[in-house]
Amino acid sequence: MSFAFDLPPAARIGQPAESIDTPSLVLDLAVFERNVERMQAAADKAGVKLRPHAKAHKTPDIALAQIARGAVGICCQKVSEAIPFVRAGVRDIHISNEVAGPAKAALLAELARHAHLSVCVDDLRQIDALAAATLAAGSQLDIFVEVDVGQGRCGVADGDAALPLVERIAAHSQLTLRGLQAYHGGIQHLRGWDERREAAARAADRTGNAVARLAAAGVRCDVVTGGGSGSVEFDLSSGVYTEIQPGSYVFMDADYGSNAYTGTMRFEHGLFIATAVMSVAAGDRVVVDAGLKSMAVDSGLPWIWEKNAPSNSLDYVAANDEHGIVRPKQEGAVDALPPLGSRMMLVPGHCDPTLNLYDELVGVRGGVVACIWPISARGLSR
Amino acid sequence: MSFAFDLPPAARIGQPAESIDTPSLVLDLAVFERNVERMQAAADKAGVKLRPHAKAHKTPDIALAQIARGAVGICCQKVSEAIPFVRAGVRDIHISNEVAGPAKAALLAELARHAHLSVCVDDLRQIDALAAATLAAGSQLDIFVEVDVGQGRCGVADGDAALPLVERIAAHSQLTLRGLQAYHGGIQHLRGWDERREAAARAADRTGNAVARLAAAGVRCDVVTGGGSGSVEFDLSSGVYTEIQPGSYVFMDADYGSNAYTGTMRFEHGLFIATAVMSVAAGDRVVVDAGLKSMAVDSGLPWIWEKNAPSNSLDYVAANDEHGIVRPKQEGAVDALPPLGSRMMLVPGHCDPTLNLYDELVGVRGGVVACIWPISARGLSR
Repeated sequence: MSFAFDLPPAARIGQPAESIDTPSLVLDLAVFERNVERMQAAADKAGVKLRPHAKAHKTPDIALAQIARGAVGICCQKVSEAIPFVRAGVRDIHISNEVAGPAKAALLAELARHAHLSVCVDDLRQIDALAAATLAAGSQLDIFVEVDVGQGRCGVADGDAALPLVERIAAHSQLTLRGLQAYHGGIQHLRGWDERREAAARAADRTGNAVARLAAAGVRCDVVTGGGSGSVEFDLSSGVYTEIQPGSYVFMDADYGSNAYTGTMRFEHGLFIATAVMSVAAGDRVVVDAGLKSMAVDSGLPWIWEKNAPSNSLDYVAANDEHGIVRPKQEGAVDALPPLGSRMMLVPGHCDPTLNLYDELVGVRGGVVACIWPISARGLSR
Repeated sequence: MSFAFDLPPAARIGQPAESIDTPSLVLDLAVFERNVERMQAAADKAGVKLRPHAKAHKTPDIALAQIARGAVGICCQKVSEAIPFVRAGVRDIHISNEVAGPAKAALLAELARHAHLSVCVDDLRQIDALAAATLAAGSQLDIFVEVDVGQGRCGVADGDAALPLVERIAAHSQLTLRGLQAYHGGIQHLRGWDERREAAARAADRTGNAVARLAAAGVRCDVVTGGGSGSVEFDLSSGVYTEIQPGSYVFMDADYGSNAYTGTMRFEHGLFIATAVMSVAAGDRVVVDAGLKSMAVDSGLPWIWEKNAPSNSLDYVAANDEHGIVRPKQEGAVDALPPLGSRMMLVPGHCDPTLNLYDELVGVRGGVVACIWPISARGLSR
């Protein structure tokens, strides 16, 4: 028997949102647009360029929407991740990361023939590899020296340590030093607003010192790039960054939602996992059909979202591969449990690796499916 | 400028394993085959059928290898997950889970026209939905009543609670009761061998009681299915299960590797993430290019694998989206840190959701790439 059989789509344009198949990744388009505009307006007001991080969404349609509203380009975290964005017409991409090995340098140099690309370095040998690859490809590459301003990951320690790299970059006509990258991921998730403000101030100090050290040596940094969704209000007013690279603000996951915020820089939750109750056989819990394969739990379990806020009555308490266990917040309050087949919207704990699990993002407006965006960079980690 | 540009493959058949692009998911084929054969031999010896769980690998080539060595079919955890296996020629698939909603029931009923399919129930309304869908599709479906034997997830409480479901199944000629599913996932990860043995004995007791209760009511269970990679030696000798459904044994992740084992039922680690050192700028750590988007960390961080064992000198201590931080086990022993560009093999903490991140599994034999298997069910959670 022949088998010509394809999985029906999870959603069709024009269909009511409540009939999207589960589990599916759903974007509230009105919230998304407000988040994009709020960040752009804040950057414009501060006179700082916005280069959103595409590792959060991996979705060319989102990058194009950000650029249409004023973003100068995007960041990607891996070279392969940039390919679908170049294919979709994005022409200015910063690889906010170091690149390991000649194969990746060659890929980057080849991509640089099709778009304006920059990349980070923190080692002389990376520069040599990039110089050889761009020479072979006949392309030009902009280079940022990464400075570790407290994250404890990649990057040289300070301006002094950056100087030999700056010199080596200058030795290659196909490489151009554009400035410094100074990103501190840990700050983004500090819960208290004052705590984040102080940590961001320390990182900005270290960044400013590195810029000053280079200036004293006669090296100008046209661009100083850094900052994220949790620190952006401080980064914008620091006077140090010429460009910010937040990513998660378009979605707001539960982890970012657990931060305390003041003022206008709080973004709205727009990303959801639509899930359905598949078992109610036990009286004290229900089981939903979204688990570890439908969401990343590295930053905590998802929130159950009801009436535009985290549920008052239910908790998602455990994730198995393809199951989620939902219990009443109040022990014994089993009347709060939803019936078999009913639907729930979850706010994932961490948006970036959750997007990386899906091929499509279903956009909803006014209760109706309005678009289905391919998550084209899903799985591109090379 | 037109952009006809594709990402080069991570690996090509015949290429040395040490030049596979990073991060990539790599399978040691000799280990894999020994694991498959060891489980099959144990099941054969016990006179119990082996129906491996395909949620662990999502890879039709692996399912076909398991069936070629004697497996009676496979399990899938979701209806959509079964599609690529049916397409690859697998003709006997048990959906070891309940199904929520008419769309999924219709999909299952349609698939049942192309292969022998069974599914679990724990609610009368699920049976009604399956009856309607199979009637509409003109297909037949085998049904298992799921009994909760201690997992605390899906399933009815005991044999008494199964009886009304059995009656309802009997009312539909296109549905056939095949028996009971009694799976306890929690047991698999109990660390102590005695602890697992005792917990498996309790679950087997509850399973046996349910079978006896049905028998007393004149209901025969031809098949009693359950068991996993961590409990299989006890399940096989329990006398209760006619069929076991382990999945992870083909790979052995770090979580299963942390269990204590005795006797011959210890499986070998065969699944690895190939990663490369991308930054050595800090003296006290190195940064590798595999993070949260290259492995699931819900069951812990990966092991660094050296000389066929977990590394004595290095620890993978933190995962960011696209970075892993590696430090010496012994504080200050920085001589143990590997150089820029060097490669490392990681054993992931949890294999199932790690497979769900990749499109391809690179099979290696004798240090050379021998096959590249599509992970065709990757992302199929509906």
